[in-house]
Parts: sequence; structure tokens; C-alpha cells
Amino acid sequence: MNYYNAMIRALHVLSTIWFALTVTGLAVAQAQAKDPLPSWNEGSTKRAIVQFVKQVSAPGGPKFVPSSQRIAVFDNDGTLWSEQPFYFQLVFALDRVRALAPKHPEWKHKQPFKAALAGDMKALLATGKHGLLELIMATHAGVTTQEFAAIVKAWTATARHPKTGRLYTEMVYQPMLELLAYLRANGFKTYITSGGGIAFMRPWVEKVYGIPPEQVIGSSIRTKFELRGGMPVLVRLPKINFIDDKAGKPIAINLHIGRRPIAAFGNSDGDLQMLQWTASGKGARFALIVHHTDAKREWAYDRKSSVGRLDKALDSARANGWTVVDMKRDWKVIYPFEKR
Amino acid sequence: MNYYNAMIRALHVLSTIWFALTVTGLAVAQAQAKDPLPSWNEGSTKRAIVQFVKQVSAPGGPKFVPSSQRIAVFDNDGTLWSEQPFYFQLVFALDRVRALAPKHPEWKHKQPFKAALAGDMKALLATGKHGLLELIMATHAGVTTQEFAAIVKAWTATARHPKTGRLYTEMVYQPMLELLAYLRANGFKTYITSGGGIAFMRPWVEKVYGIPPEQVIGSSIRTKFELRGGMPVLVRLPKINFIDDKAGKPIAINLHIGRRPIAAFGNSDGDLQMLQWTASGKGARFALIVHHTDAKREWAYDRKSSVGRLDKALDSARANGWTVVDMKRDWKVIYPFEKR
Repeated sequence: MNYYNAMIRALHVLSTIWFALTVTGLAVAQAQAKDPLPSWNEGSTKRAIVQFVKQVSAPGGPKFVPSSQRIAVFDNDGTLWSEQPFYFQLVFALDRVRALAPKHPEWKHKQPFKAALAGDMKALLATGKHGLLELIMATHAGVTTQEFAAIVKAWTATARHPKTGRLYTEMVYQPMLELLAYLRANGFKTYITSGGGIAFMRPWVEKVYGIPPEQVIGSSIRTKFELRGGMPVLVRLPKINFIDDKAGKPIAINLHIGRRPIAAFGNSDGDLQMLQWTASGKGARFALIVHHTDAKREWAYDRKSSVGRLDKALDSARANGWTVVDMKRDWKVIYPFEKR
Repeated sequence: MNYYNAMIRALHVLSTIWFALTVTGLAVAQAQAKDPLPSWNEGSTKRAIVQFVKQVSAPGGPKFVPSSQRIAVFDNDGTLWSEQPFYFQLVFALDRVRALAPKHPEWKHKQPFKAALAGDMKALLATGKHGLLELIMATHAGVTTQEFAAIVKAWTATARHPKTGRLYTEMVYQPMLELLAYLRANGFKTYITSGGGIAFMRPWVEKVYGIPPEQVIGSSIRTKFELRGGMPVLVRLPKINFIDDKAGKPIAINLHIGRRPIAAFGNSDGDLQMLQWTASGKGARFALIVHHTDAKREWAYDRKSSVGRLDKALDSARANGWTVVDMKRDWKVIYPFEKR
């Protein structure tokens, strides 16, 4: 080795050490200075979250969990975005009925379409499970997967909530956005496990929540592979494939992820089995319920609600020491647009 | 800012630049020096793979694909590991029949179990689809998901192939292991999409292929959520949930991943629709078929085989310019243990 090479080597080693030291120093200083959950009020809820994340991500600690196993699952309706006065996907279905009505003159005289077209929610809900299912099939099937994604994208870009006047995708919870980012910054893989449609969520959740399509689990209808002029398409069929609710959630988690999450976040009895499944694994576990307690800034509801009812899961949370978010008390802001 | 701080800052900037330059230089030199596919012979197949990977991962290039969309799907039986003289999962099922037989004296006189216990493959296959299904259900259901994973782990740790005397998980293709690693090193997410059981693969594929459970797609039976003494379990039921073969593959890819892969790897007509679905997307695409041409080092079979038959997919590959691996010509070694 000549003199020049030796000098280069020495400089390289020195610069590497120096770089590592400065980067480490800066990162530590930054981490100490910046609160990853600024929209969460100080208190027991925030402390419980931060403590869990620190414990599972501390190498060598007694509750350490390897990053590959740091799986966190989130319900969507009422947990990541609002769900009042009706599930937003139901609003989407009603808008689709109106858009498709000119091609279906018979709908004017036929339930559940008649009620949907009149905007008569009471009459619509009176058609029961069967009526709602018919509505979903008529508005969600009969197109290719690509066409449906484009329809959802167009709707989320324009449809606005009657109370706030905001896009539905703006009515997501700022504290939960921070929580998702905080978990990911600490090596977690964040998933959605929703009773809502998997194909209804995927077109927008990556942009809004930072969750890629392959980490979205939801209800689905069947699809059929077809060659159209030599080009393959997947056609959406009016047939239920899977309902991702209640006991369906752990079943779908097992099918899609294949390992048990260590953290689960929900807001209704539809999330109970997912929370039980998550909380009962070995090692550090975290189960959290978002309790809608803020009638002024959002909505207040739990045991008696027309949407996801929070009853058994609330009792279970109290019995098992799960974390319960009191939206009114724990959240500084509800929606991102309030920050401005 | 005082003099000392200014000096520290200047040094930090300089060291960062220096570090970046040396690291870049070293990485380039290393990449040039080290062949990522050492078990692949030089030739058109290897060139096609390397060219595709370089094109889609070159920022600013005309065929660049963002890393989040670099999804690659691999069939398993015959593509990542051998499948002769019978699918390895069928061998597992036969071993399970033998293990469970003492509890089922009636099996001695009842097909397909009688044939299975006698090791009479001809008689077993003669029981047809129905017989094989009954065999799978009797050997794959009736236990919890955790119990089944433990059974599979125990089997893969001990069962040996009659021809090579090796563990079945050692009979994976060394060139494909290198290909998986090469793709991942270039920002790809690698998935399995197999007709084999999702629960049969997940216990060992992470260790063997570096593919985590959440990136495994396969055939499945139904499961049921149950509380046993307050503890939730998922019980495996003797009921088909999904067959991940032929047109089922793009359907399952859409359900699990939610975006179209840009690269697909298969070896039989069961992979045709997955290859079509992948190849027909916009932008750079790669479709590859492993052709079993090496009777000496592995097995030679295609259009007339008792396992995955390669017939239409081979014609389609030729018509569409897909890449076809000639195992005898393209692979320096077949299995990892040959390297020693």
C-alpha cells in the first residue's frame, strides 16, 4: 500500500467515526426535543402508548419485540376517521345510486333504491340487512377492479360531509395520524382491519394514512378473472366474499398477515375479537379503544348507536386494563384542518 | 455562533460529504466486483433478469418504477423448490395419515386412507380429486392454527426426500434464492403465490427464502374463532376457503396485495393467469418460467407430468417473449448443498 492509499484509508476511517458520532448526537437531541404525539394531551393514555412503544423497541430490554413482529392493526370507521351520521361508505353507495339511477328507471319504485334516491335514511335502514346488501351489490359490483378504484378516487376527491363541509378523507383523526407515524418510526408495520370494503379503502389510504394497499384488510366481494380482447381484467361480482367484522377480524388477520399483532386499535364491539386475539398473545401487548365522548368537536356515542356500537368491548377494556381514549379529554384537536 | 461551533459545523459538513463520497465509491466498486447471481450461467436468461432489475430501479430512467410498486410474485412448487416425485405437501399429508392412524382404526379399510397407509400412490391418485381432498382435510384440519404450525415445523425439521436424503426445505433452488435476494437488494418486495397451503408454507419460508408470513399467499381452509377457557384460538375447519391456482392466483394477488406485480415467476399452467395478469400491466414487466430440463441433477418434465403441467404457459411464454429458464443450461447448481 502506498502513502496516498494509506492516507485515504485513514481519512475514511476518521470521517466514518466522526459522521457516526455527529449523526447519533443530532438524532438523540432531536428525539428528546420533539414530541411525536403533539395532538395528544398529557395524561395516562399518552403515557401508556409511549411506554409500550419504548418497551417493545428497546433492544435488550425485557419486553423487546423484534421489528418484524411489531405488527399493529387499526380499525378504520370511528377509529381512524369519523363514521357519523352514517358510515362514509354508505354515503358513497347512496351517491352511486343517484349516479346510476338514469340507467335503472325501475329503482324509482323499488326498495331499497327508492329510499336511497329519496335520501330517506329511515326507510332505507328499515329495509334491513338484506336491503343494504342489495344496495352495496348494485353500487359496488359489475365493474372491473380498476374501474372501481377510479370511481372511489373520483368520489373521495369531491364528496363533502354535510356537517363540516370537508372532504371525507379530511375527516381523519389528527392524533391517530400521529400515532400511525410514531409507530412506523419505531419499526412497526401498520395495518388497517376494517369492516369497510377493502376496495373502497385502498385507493386513498396510502396518501391519507401512509398505509400501502398490501396492508389493508377489509370486507370484500368476489372477483372473476376474464380475458377481454386478450387483456386480463378482474370483474367485481355481486357476491359476498368475506365480512371483516367481529370474529372475522382475527380470521382475516391470520389469513393476510399470518402472525398475531402486538397492538390493536378499535372503537366498537366489531373490534372485540381482534382486541382479544391481539391482547392474549405472549409478551408485550397493547389494546386501545377510541371512545367517542366529544359531542361538540365530533360526536358522542357508545352503547346505543346506529353505527359501530361500543358496549361489550368497553366492559372488556375495563375488565382487562386496555387503554381507553377519551376523545374529549385526550385529544387536543380532532381533525387535521383544526390545526390551522 | 462562536468560533468553536463554527468549526464543528464546518467539520461536520466536510465529513458528511467525504463520507458520502467514500461510501458511494465503495458501493459502486463492490457492485461491479460481486456477481449477485453466481449460480446462474452467463447467457440470455441471466442478462434478461439483470437488465430488467437495472431498468426499473434506475431513478430517472425511462422504465423506472418506484420501490413501493416493485412487487414480485413467485410460485413455490417447482419454482422455488422441487415437486417430484410428488408435491412435498402431499408427502407431509401421507406422513400425517401414518401419525394419526392409531386413532383411526377404520382407515385401514377405507379409501383414500388405506392407499395412503400402504404407500400405494397409484391407488391413492385413483381416488381422484375427492379422495385427495378428504386426505387433506383429515390431515390439515381439526387443530388450532398454532398447533398446525408446530406440526409443520416438526415435519420440515425431520422428514427427508427419498432420492436425495435431504430435508425437503434443503431442496430449494440455489439460483432462485440468489434471485430473491437480488430483487430485495434492489427494492423489490418478494411474495409467494402458491397453490400449496398458506399455513403449510408460513412456518418455514421466512427462514428458507427470507419471505415473511405476510408475504405468503396460498390455498387455505376456513378457520373459526373460539374462546377456550377465555383464551382465543383459531380452529382449522375441514372446509375449503380458497384454491390459489390458475385464475385464483390473480384474484388472490388482488385481494392480498391490492396492486399488480411487475414481475412474476412460475413453472406450470397453474401460473399462466398470474403471468398474464403481471405481464399485461403498464410499464416495465417481467414474466419468467422455470422449465425443468435437467433429468440428471433434478427432474425433466413439462407437457405430460403428474404434478404441475407446463403446456399452455410454455406456448404463451414463446408467443409473448417471456423469459424461460432452461434449468440444465442456465443453472450452475440446483440445490444449495451442491455448492460445498
